[in-house]
Amino acid sequence: MTDLVDRLLRELPAAAVVTDPDVLASYRYDMAGFCAAGEPAVLVLPESVEQVQHVLRTATELRVPVVPQGARTGLSGAANAVDGCILLSLLKLNRILEIDPVNRIAVVQPGVLNAELSRAVAEHGLAYPPDPSSWESCTIGGNIGTGAGGLCCVKYGVTSEYVLGLEVVLADGQLISTGRRTAKGVAGYDLTRLLVGSEGTLGVVVEAVLALRPAPEPQLALAAEFPSADAACEAVCEVMAGGFTPSLMELMDGTTVRAVNAMARMGLPESTRALLLVAFDGPGQVAEIAAVAELCRAAGASEVVPAENQAESELLLQARRLSLPALDRLGTTMIDDVAVPRSRMAEMLRGVAEIADRYALTIGVVSHAGDGNTHPVVVFDAADPAETERAKVSFDEIMALGLRLGGTITGEHGVGLLKRDWLARELGPVGLELQRRVKAAFDPLGILNPGKTL
Amino acid sequence: MTDLVDRLLRELPAAAVVTDPDVLASYRYDMAGFCAAGEPAVLVLPESVEQVQHVLRTATELRVPVVPQGARTGLSGAANAVDGCILLSLLKLNRILEIDPVNRIAVVQPGVLNAELSRAVAEHGLAYPPDPSSWESCTIGGNIGTGAGGLCCVKYGVTSEYVLGLEVVLADGQLISTGRRTAKGVAGYDLTRLLVGSEGTLGVVVEAVLALRPAPEPQLALAAEFPSADAACEAVCEVMAGGFTPSLMELMDGTTVRAVNAMARMGLPESTRALLLVAFDGPGQVAEIAAVAELCRAAGASEVVPAENQAESELLLQARRLSLPALDRLGTTMIDDVAVPRSRMAEMLRGVAEIADRYALTIGVVSHAGDGNTHPVVVFDAADPAETERAKVSFDEIMALGLRLGGTITGEHGVGLLKRDWLARELGPVGLELQRRVKAAFDPLGILNPGKTL
Repeated sequence: MTDLVDRLLRELPAAAVVTDPDVLASYRYDMAGFCAAGEPAVLVLPESVEQVQHVLRTATELRVPVVPQGARTGLSGAANAVDGCILLSLLKLNRILEIDPVNRIAVVQPGVLNAELSRAVAEHGLAYPPDPSSWESCTIGGNIGTGAGGLCCVKYGVTSEYVLGLEVVLADGQLISTGRRTAKGVAGYDLTRLLVGSEGTLGVVVEAVLALRPAPEPQLALAAEFPSADAACEAVCEVMAGGFTPSLMELMDGTTVRAVNAMARMGLPESTRALLLVAFDGPGQVAEIAAVAELCRAAGASEVVPAENQAESELLLQARRLSLPALDRLGTTMIDDVAVPRSRMAEMLRGVAEIADRYALTIGVVSHAGDGNTHPVVVFDAADPAETERAKVSFDEIMALGLRLGGTITGEHGVGLLKRDWLARELGPVGLELQRRVKAAFDPLGILNPGKTL
Repeated sequence: MTDLVDRLLRELPAAAVVTDPDVLASYRYDMAGFCAAGEPAVLVLPESVEQVQHVLRTATELRVPVVPQGARTGLSGAANAVDGCILLSLLKLNRILEIDPVNRIAVVQPGVLNAELSRAVAEHGLAYPPDPSSWESCTIGGNIGTGAGGLCCVKYGVTSEYVLGLEVVLADGQLISTGRRTAKGVAGYDLTRLLVGSEGTLGVVVEAVLALRPAPEPQLALAAEFPSADAACEAVCEVMAGGFTPSLMELMDGTTVRAVNAMARMGLPESTRALLLVAFDGPGQVAEIAAVAELCRAAGASEVVPAENQAESELLLQARRLSLPALDRLGTTMIDDVAVPRSRMAEMLRGVAEIADRYALTIGVVSHAGDGNTHPVVVFDAADPAETERAKVSFDEIMALGLRLGGTITGEHGVGLLKRDWLARELGPVGLELQRRVKAAFDPLGILNPGKTL
């Protein structure tokens, strides 16, 4: 280990190489539950691409595993330390290098926060759409590593739609460029999108060319209360089959509504079994909100509240923003992330309710309903080993249910450690073996974030 | 070879295995110029996934190369035969398996024509946006293989944005599923997008889950005549920097305008050095057309003609549709496909004009201007060896120019044989080596479309 630190210090400043045990301990975990972390050998915080290259060259020479980290807000354990590893934090590579309104691109380093970028491009009348819940604190590098989504995806898509090109340090320290700065390009295999969502297992992203869009108009929202989740899901299907493209379509189940009520006294009727929030940001938004209000009533909504202005819209969307904090107050929580075809979402919600009953657990479900992406939040008492075990089993049953409904074990949070064993089930043996060969093509020694994803 | 045919016939009907030399000859080439083709051993036209698997298993056992083919409308030579190969035509796998308006997906076999799919989904009020010029005759499988683009891409993106999941027969005949049927998903590496644009070198696509969008409103267009290409490019930059999102933004240079005039007597002034076509398909289109007309005048347009209805719009767009046929009348043509950042498009057009002068050639340029994707069309007398040689050299100089301007050697047509040597220049040695390792991970024996792309 002294040898490792000595070699790192040959081309890194002393302040960038940390061995203080307390600091190391504070960098061991991301925000996933139920995921173990190993004991890191050292934390490095490089400030240049050359320094990142030196770290990887050193790791290759000494066969030391490297775990790349952003802000560690991830929910899959992908950034958790492994024993003897170098924790490679990209937080100090945090500059926005370029914002170009004509070409609608930004060039950024990986440690830039999503919110920083969003605010910087807003000054040019532009938007970087992907908006994970953690957008105020998560990094663009982390978003790329996980393939992050968010509330806007039903209209604007996910991170991989916005990554045009990357600068990547490979496992052996070599630097490559993938992709392009142009709007289009098909020269060679699309390694850019292969790297998006690869959770630091294929290379270390040190720069990204991101596509931007013109900033949309402020959203106009409606809230619709339903006496059943089935009716709300029916409304979601009607909206999508009707050719609407909302900028947001979120669904909170009855458990979540009650939790939000309890925390924030929002005065939602206790009979509400599902609250649907729908917003539009285009020039036709007033007519769209009116039409969707009508669809919701026809699908059985007991109450439909269309906002008349942006302030009212913000108030309605507040209920969604408070969902996770409100559920967190009820106990230890573990958030799942299963996407199903949106036509099967009603079955998904019924199935999760049945699982909650069977295991005598509270499971609130908030969903990016337009995408069929459900987040069942399992609430349990971490001091109660039996209940904790039931929580783990229910978490797995939720994934099994998602797969049975033609879905995926992860819509946007990633595989990491948390769902690694489940990935094999989704991909099958031939698919998994092919993914392993791709991993080996990038990282033949297996030093990049070993044990994650695959 | 008899052995090859015998083995193929074990699980393929006789009609699906073709050795007639005349038929073989007619399947040797796609539509690329300057690309050699080898002598195929046999043509197979399987009608089921199982038959495709049998072809690949046989090819692996006998170490015979396989060249997958769609409608052979490609422009890079990717579908050209190699010596001794099996030509694997996917034209008989041509069923639309599913159109699902709630989940906004279609599930199709690779031999479905782009136009067939577009018409079928239109009946459900939906659209499959990618619209290459050959859309009436090209296949979805070919579109996936090349990563095809088209006129709509400035607003709607390219093929890879619309491929959610694939069924793929690997080189050894095994079948894998990649991706998903859900709107979102990040389970494992994104092999789906890796396969899009891989020109049949990684696997054979036998089924695809495609994302659909609500059908847009009919486009409203304007045409603007400019006294210089610089002024037209300036207008393009102003439109994009102004936050507009046109559904089409096409630029024809003076050479192209004159060719169209000569063929169709469209009465465009001979002083026109650039014709810009801009269209919008959203609810704000009337106001957007008016605003863009003003921007064009401010940028120096000598004449701006906004359409007042769909019929007038169609008439304006007709000029663009006639561009390639009109240039084809002037001699043998070879179409290049260089994308640059849109802010550098004026330099690109000046550079191409300079190359045309220097080599005493006619080069007309039509561009997907909103994407900075230029198609310089080199016109030459194929009966004149010296002029043909000058055409080849100019074609290469156009790519070199594109790279100098921060662009890519191919925006949407692909690499194939035509630009294989140039790919190394764009990727660099480290990037190229990594792409080779990815290829080997999929196809360790190198039987899939050898000599293409890399």
